[in-house]
Amino acid sequence: MSRPVIHVINPNSNTVVTAGLKEALAPLVFADGPQIRCSTLAEGPIGIESQADVESVVLPLRRIVAADTDAAAFVIACYSDPGLWACREATRRPVFGIAECGVATALTRGDRFGVIAIRTKSIRRHLLEMSVAETASGEGTLARMIAVGTALRDEDGAEVVVMGCAGMARHRRPLEEALGVPVIDPTQAAVAMAMGAVRFG
Amino acid sequence: MSRPVIHVINPNSNTVVTAGLKEALAPLVFADGPQIRCSTLAEGPIGIESQADVESVVLPLRRIVAADTDAAAFVIACYSDPGLWACREATRRPVFGIAECGVATALTRGDRFGVIAIRTKSIRRHLLEMSVAETASGEGTLARMIAVGTALRDEDGAEVVVMGCAGMARHRRPLEEALGVPVIDPTQAAVAMAMGAVRFG
Amino acid sequence: MSRPVIHVINPNSNTVVTAGLKEALAPLVFADGPQIRCSTLAEGPIGIESQADVESVVLPLRRIVAADTDAAAFVIACYSDPGLWACREATRRPVFGIAECGVATALTRGDRFGVIAIRTKSIRRHLLEMSVAETASGEGTLARMIAVGTALRDEDGAEVVVMGCAGMARHRRPLEEALGVPVIDPTQAAVAMAMGAVRFG
Amino acid sequence: MSRPVIHVINPNSNTVVTAGLKEALAPLVFADGPQIRCSTLAEGPIGIESQADVESVVLPLRRIVAADTDAAAFVIACYSDPGLWACREATRRPVFGIAECGVATALTRGDRFGVIAIRTKSIRRHLLEMSVAETASGEGTLARMIAVGTALRDEDGAEVVVMGCAGMARHRRPLEEALGVPVIDPTQAAVAMAMGAVRFG
Amino acid sequence: MSRPVIHVINPNSNTVVTAGLKEALAPLVFADGPQIRCSTLAEGPIGIESQADVESVVLPLRRIVAADTDAAAFVIACYSDPGLWACREATRRPVFGIAECGVATALTRGDRFGVIAIRTKSIRRHLLEMSVAETASGEGTLARMIAVGTALRDEDGAEVVVMGCAGMARHRRPLEEALGVPVIDPTQAAVAMAMGAVRFG
Amino acid sequence: MSRPVIHVINPNSNTVVTAGLKEALAPLVFADGPQIRCSTLAEGPIGIESQADVESVVLPLRRIVAADTDAAAFVIACYSDPGLWACREATRRPVFGIAECGVATALTRGDRFGVIAIRTKSIRRHLLEMSVAETASGEGTLARMIAVGTALRDEDGAEVVVMGCAGMARHRRPLEEALGVPVIDPTQAAVAMAMGAVRFG
Repeated sequence: MSRPVIHVINPNSNTVVTAGLKEALAPLVFADGPQIRCSTLAEGPIGIESQADVESVVLPLRRIVAADTDAAAFVIACYSDPGLWACREATRRPVFGIAECGVATALTRGDRFGVIAIRTKSIRRHLLEMSVAETASGEGTLARMIAVGTALRDEDGAEVVVMGCAGMARHRRPLEEALGVPVIDPTQAAVAMAMGAVRFG
Repeated sequence: MSRPVIHVINPNSNTVVTAGLKEALAPLVFADGPQIRCSTLAEGPIGIESQADVESVVLPLRRIVAADTDAAAFVIACYSDPGLWACREATRRPVFGIAECGVATALTRGDRFGVIAIRTKSIRRHLLEMSVAETASGEGTLARMIAVGTALRDEDGAEVVVMGCAGMARHRRPLEEALGVPVIDPTQAAVAMAMGAVRFG
Repeated sequence: MSRPVIHVINPNSNTVVTAGLKEALAPLVFADGPQIRCSTLAEGPIGIESQADVESVVLPLRRIVAADTDAAAFVIACYSDPGLWACREATRRPVFGIAECGVATALTRGDRFGVIAIRTKSIRRHLLEMSVAETASGEGTLARMIAVGTALRDEDGAEVVVMGCAGMARHRRPLEEALGVPVIDPTQAAVAMAMGAVRFG
Repeated sequence: MSRPVIHVINPNSNTVVTAGLKEALAPLVFADGPQIRCSTLAEGPIGIESQADVESVVLPLRRIVAADTDAAAFVIACYSDPGLWACREATRRPVFGIAECGVATALTRGDRFGVIAIRTKSIRRHLLEMSVAETASGEGTLARMIAVGTALRDEDGAEVVVMGCAGMARHRRPLEEALGVPVIDPTQAAVAMAMGAVRFG
Repeated sequence: MSRPVIHVINPNSNTVVTAGLKEALAPLVFADGPQIRCSTLAEGPIGIESQADVESVVLPLRRIVAADTDAAAFVIACYSDPGLWACREATRRPVFGIAECGVATALTRGDRFGVIAIRTKSIRRHLLEMSVAETASGEGTLARMIAVGTALRDEDGAEVVVMGCAGMARHRRPLEEALGVPVIDPTQAAVAMAMGAVRFG
Repeated sequence: MSRPVIHVINPNSNTVVTAGLKEALAPLVFADGPQIRCSTLAEGPIGIESQADVESVVLPLRRIVAADTDAAAFVIACYSDPGLWACREATRRPVFGIAECGVATALTRGDRFGVIAIRTKSIRRHLLEMSVAETASGEGTLARMIAVGTALRDEDGAEVVVMGCAGMARHRRPLEEALGVPVIDPTQAAVAMAMGAVRFG
């Protein structure tokens, strides 16, 4: 019998981010467990940094979800959760958004959480002034994340920290060690929940 | 290398419930994945149905968590989440409560959720008038759950239903089929999240 | 000097709805006041009744807003407020969504309000089982609106009622007379607010 | 046919404030539109700066509203919304409070708003230490408003700023230019909404 | 040394209500404790049943509070809490509103509470269709209170019931016996809190 | 006839704290009023400073409440409100928690309140870095409370301050004088409410 598939879609067209997702999710790949397939949205922008970027991927994501009759569950791997409800309308199989899953998972680890966001227009505090691409590769990213995470922990009382971007997973462990509180990678959180949905569904 | 352990503790002393947990969680047991160890709290009451029942298991649970240096994560398998913070204080490893995890998981599947509760003094609506033991074994349980779930769905607009007890897992699938909306077993939800914490931690 | 323009965009392609908007908004057309220009989104679906319908008009709306350098303000005349933030990102001129304006206006008339919604998947109570097109033209619409409005007023304590659709304006006055509480047409509410923004901006 | 009247009542007895209201509202006076009549409450205090001041105008306002059978709508032009419910009880015609209308209008322009308040006992942050009279005439007012508005925008993330007083309208445009976000004068906002109520009612 | 005075003001002019207050509060009169002085607002309406009634007593109440330099604390014995902030502004001694105290006290007895309201325009459910005067004296009052209280307890899950009027105290005990949950008389609750403020202040 | 008893239980085993409670509550002891009996939980820890400390006293408290058929009401004199619901389940007589009563009382004195907490793991701001024992006896306590209370008042806008510990009562009056806003001792607040419940019950 074939192993069921969890389809993780990177809605931006940056294949470096997709490769990072694949690597970050490897610990949930078991010999007799679900497959985790990571794909790149070819039509997507190189990074999702504006409302227009978000909107531009909604219908392409929906088409992919509707067309992929193979997958048992979907994860949309962008912290804006683009197209979540449009995709859910297109299938009865579960569709997870990583922002929702990251926050939900944080709430099972403590009472207050903080989110480390990257550059956006709508969130003015505790953000990293860098692009999605820089986040995945940049040298100074971890140091800045530790600074922001420390402020969330000490000034705002965060007991858990969520990394507010799909491309930060490789910083999760050193950030958690530096902060001493749980740090959640939202794509990892979403895939763990998708695993439950697929296996128990 | 030995496989890490997720320790699922049934805080009541009903071994039928523990056996049901083990069976319900089998789909998350993989050859090269974490072990899922289900144990019964010998000191626990036969069912946790009053505040005194809840309180009576808090310190025993904490002792077990503190003593089990083997486990990589803990799940307290009672929908009252007894002793959650006392156990967390006793270890730096993650401790999950199934009520928190059930609700968090429901929120990743829809905007409104309902909980099917069993007999309690504090919740007067949408409850099943039966004991924990009856829930696990009783004949009429599923029919009553379908009736309550239908009311949650149609009158209160629930898009997801959480089963508010650790002992209902075998009714999950038929209930989901009858209702046509996702039905969450909270212990399954918690163990999926524990799996993520263990593998990514 | 030319009169400034308030551009009211009907995001569905039903020109009967657009004609109804024009008629409904006529009372705010003054000889020396702003022009109210009503347009139809040719690419839009005949009615916006699903999440896919909503998403399909977002980028077309944004293109229209970005291209129309003439208008002093925009009103998106669909109760789902499709593309509100995408349009706002494309211009510094004000963009009003009729759902936001309808609710905001209701809150200036009373403490509790209710919304009469048409058929949707996400709202299960107090809705009219009819399409957008039927709403604008159907014979039995008013009677059904009175029944739903009466329930909002008497069972839920609504002191104000909002008509949750752009195409219901001609029923506003008889509905208000039947209910005896203020009834808000959201497009009228939005254009009154746009008038303020244009004249005082 | 006579033009309907929007009666804007200044509940303090400072006629300079009333004259400022008249000037601020002129852009909504159209040849064939509603009249905007601004009146001064002779019994009112020179400024409404305490709870006793607020209470002292409630019944006089109610008497004016009940007696003025001419007006099609009323606006109470004080940011404390004194007597709003007492006046509404005295008439079936709409009565608008400028605080409610200012906030409601702000919410149609952005997700977060801030209010620039003048001296009060109950609000300790972001306020201008000046009397109502100084606000209308004082030289340094604008500079102080810009400082407070900048803090609201940059520290608290306000996307819209409401001027929390009836007498600040002439500072609206320069403040908006200095801040780069929409600035709402609450009386202008209320009269725009009253215009809608009168014309569509 | 003279005993400190708690001044309980009945803001309506119905001396039967004042006499009822005096009787209801007698259990807190101790030989060496504070005096409880109950007075009637001569200017007040016979019952406070409209917003105009509420407003009409605000300044008279404030004058009484400002003039009574004798009292150590004040209780305003009307469930609308008329003039609470105006009175507080007039003195540094504590002023208690019975609605606030009734609700605060209810929350120390259970997690959910309900209020039995008398006839008002703004509350449409669970109310008694009778005047304030009827409430104090009418024959059928208790039976109707039991019916409403039963609905609050069984349908809305109230664990505590607050009597939403100053004149119902003599029904407190039989109502509590009939319902089997704590029933709070708000004036009694307020005077107990005033006693604490006076003795510990 | 014997005077009814309010039983105030200090859940820690520090008899200095119990003696302080007795002294702090003396102003509510009247010749013909209820007795206030203060007892020490012999099994309790010397101070309740961790979740384990909280849990360790729950069942002992419940046993005391169940066994004391004499008392008319109970007050649990620890700001964690340990065992509140377990005790309530064991008796039909009222059981008050001082945290609930302190907050409820604060809300009858102003709209915003702050709490001065002692050292805990979960509250990171506005806390005193000292043990329960130090709080009761330490020299520098008052000065530190004034500093924290001033910050609550001036930075957070607190109109009332609650002392978040059972052992601080002797600092109440000087703290209130220093701050100029009401300061609530939670045990005093709870006993005043218990007095009402006992006398009117």
